[in-house]
Amino acid sequence: MSTPTVGTGRILKLACLLGLFFGLWFAPIPEGLTRESWHLFAIFASAIFAVVLNIFPLFTSALLACAIVVLTNTLTPAKAFGAFANPVVLLVVTAFLVSQSVVKSGLGKRISLYVISFFGRSTLGLAYSIFITDTLIAPGFPSNTARGGVLFPVILALAQNSGSTPDDDEKRRLGGYLMFCGMASLAITSALWFTATSGNPVGAGLAAEKGMTITFGSWLLASCVPCLVVIALLPLLLYRLHPPGITDTPEAPDNARRELSKMGPMSRHEWITAVTFSVMVTGWILAAPYGLNLTAIAMAGLATLMITGVLTVDDMSQQGGTLVTFIWLAVLFGMSGQLNEMGFMGYVGERLAVGLEGLSWPAAYVALVVMYVLLHFGFVSQNAQVLALLGVFLDVGVKSGVPVPLMAYALLFASSYFSVITPQGGSQNIIFVASGYLRQGELYRLGLLTTLFCTVVFLVIGTPWILWVG
Amino acid sequence: MSTPTVGTGRILKLACLLGLFFGLWFAPIPEGLTRESWHLFAIFASAIFAVVLNIFPLFTSALLACAIVVLTNTLTPAKAFGAFANPVVLLVVTAFLVSQSVVKSGLGKRISLYVISFFGRSTLGLAYSIFITDTLIAPGFPSNTARGGVLFPVILALAQNSGSTPDDDEKRRLGGYLMFCGMASLAITSALWFTATSGNPVGAGLAAEKGMTITFGSWLLASCVPCLVVIALLPLLLYRLHPPGITDTPEAPDNARRELSKMGPMSRHEWITAVTFSVMVTGWILAAPYGLNLTAIAMAGLATLMITGVLTVDDMSQQGGTLVTFIWLAVLFGMSGQLNEMGFMGYVGERLAVGLEGLSWPAAYVALVVMYVLLHFGFVSQNAQVLALLGVFLDVGVKSGVPVPLMAYALLFASSYFSVITPQGGSQNIIFVASGYLRQGELYRLGLLTTLFCTVVFLVIGTPWILWVG
Repeated sequence: MSTPTVGTGRILKLACLLGLFFGLWFAPIPEGLTRESWHLFAIFASAIFAVVLNIFPLFTSALLACAIVVLTNTLTPAKAFGAFANPVVLLVVTAFLVSQSVVKSGLGKRISLYVISFFGRSTLGLAYSIFITDTLIAPGFPSNTARGGVLFPVILALAQNSGSTPDDDEKRRLGGYLMFCGMASLAITSALWFTATSGNPVGAGLAAEKGMTITFGSWLLASCVPCLVVIALLPLLLYRLHPPGITDTPEAPDNARRELSKMGPMSRHEWITAVTFSVMVTGWILAAPYGLNLTAIAMAGLATLMITGVLTVDDMSQQGGTLVTFIWLAVLFGMSGQLNEMGFMGYVGERLAVGLEGLSWPAAYVALVVMYVLLHFGFVSQNAQVLALLGVFLDVGVKSGVPVPLMAYALLFASSYFSVITPQGGSQNIIFVASGYLRQGELYRLGLLTTLFCTVVFLVIGTPWILWVG
Repeated sequence: MSTPTVGTGRILKLACLLGLFFGLWFAPIPEGLTRESWHLFAIFASAIFAVVLNIFPLFTSALLACAIVVLTNTLTPAKAFGAFANPVVLLVVTAFLVSQSVVKSGLGKRISLYVISFFGRSTLGLAYSIFITDTLIAPGFPSNTARGGVLFPVILALAQNSGSTPDDDEKRRLGGYLMFCGMASLAITSALWFTATSGNPVGAGLAAEKGMTITFGSWLLASCVPCLVVIALLPLLLYRLHPPGITDTPEAPDNARRELSKMGPMSRHEWITAVTFSVMVTGWILAAPYGLNLTAIAMAGLATLMITGVLTVDDMSQQGGTLVTFIWLAVLFGMSGQLNEMGFMGYVGERLAVGLEGLSWPAAYVALVVMYVLLHFGFVSQNAQVLALLGVFLDVGVKSGVPVPLMAYALLFASSYFSVITPQGGSQNIIFVASGYLRQGELYRLGLLTTLFCTVVFLVIGTPWILWVG
């Protein structure tokens, strides 16, 4: 990676990018939008386009977009930089830093060896163990980002202990498969439990405005059938879509048991890590009722690991990749939030909804769900889309004759499972994406196919089920 | 750096820290202060105490303080995390990242060889060249942080080319001397020129409320004599206080010239770096009249260097140390700002000022200046202290009979030169501190002595001069 090659392909792509940007910037501003919100859209769309076409890396694209947004007075510096202080962004950063301890202390290796000794006969067995573990812990984690922070180091250790590294093009496939299983698992378990992600209560609040009361139990009743079908089939489907290379590992359980006995009893640092994570997780579970801040809890956990010497400032100094993620995530998160606040997202939703008038309710229902899912291509945050579009879409669906519970649950569940549609579609993805086990193209392909699979399952199996129990 | 040693010394220090924290926390809250502002002070003071006594590194201390501040509801998460989005903090981070290009492209090496070929006969010659260069460019840099971003890579290259590294305990002394000269130079040149730091216009605005008009010219007239005396003597003083080890380098100029001819003409990356920095600096100079944001200009510069391939995402991924700085700076900057906003700083200033009533004006003047300088021990930002205390101190001084121009200029100049009193006393210090050439103890010792030296020069030489021209 020195000078980027300046081939004809690259020049052509750059011309396309400049064409898109200036085309949008100088296009007539649609009625109902401010000039600033349209210009912000032009910059945001160009930045995403540059990344999708591999013209610039995410970091460069985000940095350039941020500079342009401020220097053209499209956003004030306070608004453009605001997301650097967003607790969700800071939770992602802190989760990155904390998760090192699970690997460094050896605890991750021990847990992964333990999992392998039970399920390790095959890669598929490992994948199912990720989904099952996540399903069981999800109701206690009101933040899927935080849950990702717990799952990631275990998955990383699983991949590394199977000899998979991001640099070896053949061996990285196993790690890539497990990493994507982690992301997909977070997406579907967030749909299963009302308390598995912060977006669920937010969306339920919007549904309440349509006179619908959602509880922990009614949510679970509606979600369980389609979610469990996805959980049962998805590891298998991903196995086909992204063959992990290494498939049968018949000696793995025995080897793992031998390794475990070689490791001996848990070390002091492993104990400290285990206790710190337990306290952190307990804190996260109690965060909602006691009004605790998730990020502050994670910071306290990281400080504890530093004070006890499990992690050192030197370890932190190795985390330049986290800084790169911090910067691009904060910039794009901030721009997406501003697009929403400036009414751009709502405007797009309304435009699309207007076109549906006159359709039968089942046709309108399917069209709305599919559109809602596909629109997530443009969103960096699940909560942003929920806040921007869920209310509008629910409104249009109900006006078209779709039963309220069906429309509401379909949109609420979609707001969780669509998170894998792009690598930036949910902040919990980032930590898995940053591991380097998956290429950008693979992430988009697997993300789209997984999201389509979930959409089909929820439409075909979920719809009659929700109509029956709803 | 594995487990910290748990000796009696450390246990004693920890006990002191806990005693201080709980002592302050549960102490009766002084009248006129809210409970939150007093608790914030208890946390902030304990965090600084922990660093000064080397109980925790800055990073750990800041992280712990931030977690406590939020979890005890002393500050809302939005306020506690707010400084992560502060443009000054982000400018420091971006300046760190941009400055790599000067080193990586070879431009820093070329400039330093050029400087050595003229002044390199002695280490003292190099130090003077730092001060002179900074003095000449300072009026065009409204941000001393940005100026630090330009000076730092050149000083780093000077140190490295003289064989000085932070790890070698003997050879690091040369680098440490030059690094401290950089910090001290930024402090004194900011006092010399009205436009050399953003705090100057802010302070001048406060003086205007006392009916005093300050222009570029009147400022320079008042500052030139004491500032030039400091610039003339300080490199020599620091040379005594922190002998650089290597002193005479008679062959250095010739060697440098040979190296320069070996380097050949400037490479493509050097040209890009030089042009990018020139445009960035021009942008910074034009920032004030054209309302441009300094941080966005720096981000545009960094994006340019990334797009042209001078820097890559891989280079960014090596910058974990920058992330460490980002986190502690944002936390402490935010807490200091909140202490100010909550009225704590103003309260302390008023308390101290009350004690002066009844003194003769020269005595009150000296006492106020010395107190104002020493109080900077507790501030992470120069602007914060200017906003919190300059108005109060000026008020008290004028009421005690000190002539307005004398009191105003003395406080305004102090607001620049006191920045080196602690490593965190000015955000522009951080980049030099993070270079690792100076130990924590050395930074505090040199910082205090340099600040005292400046205070004496400004009181003894500056006072009659300002009275004469003011």
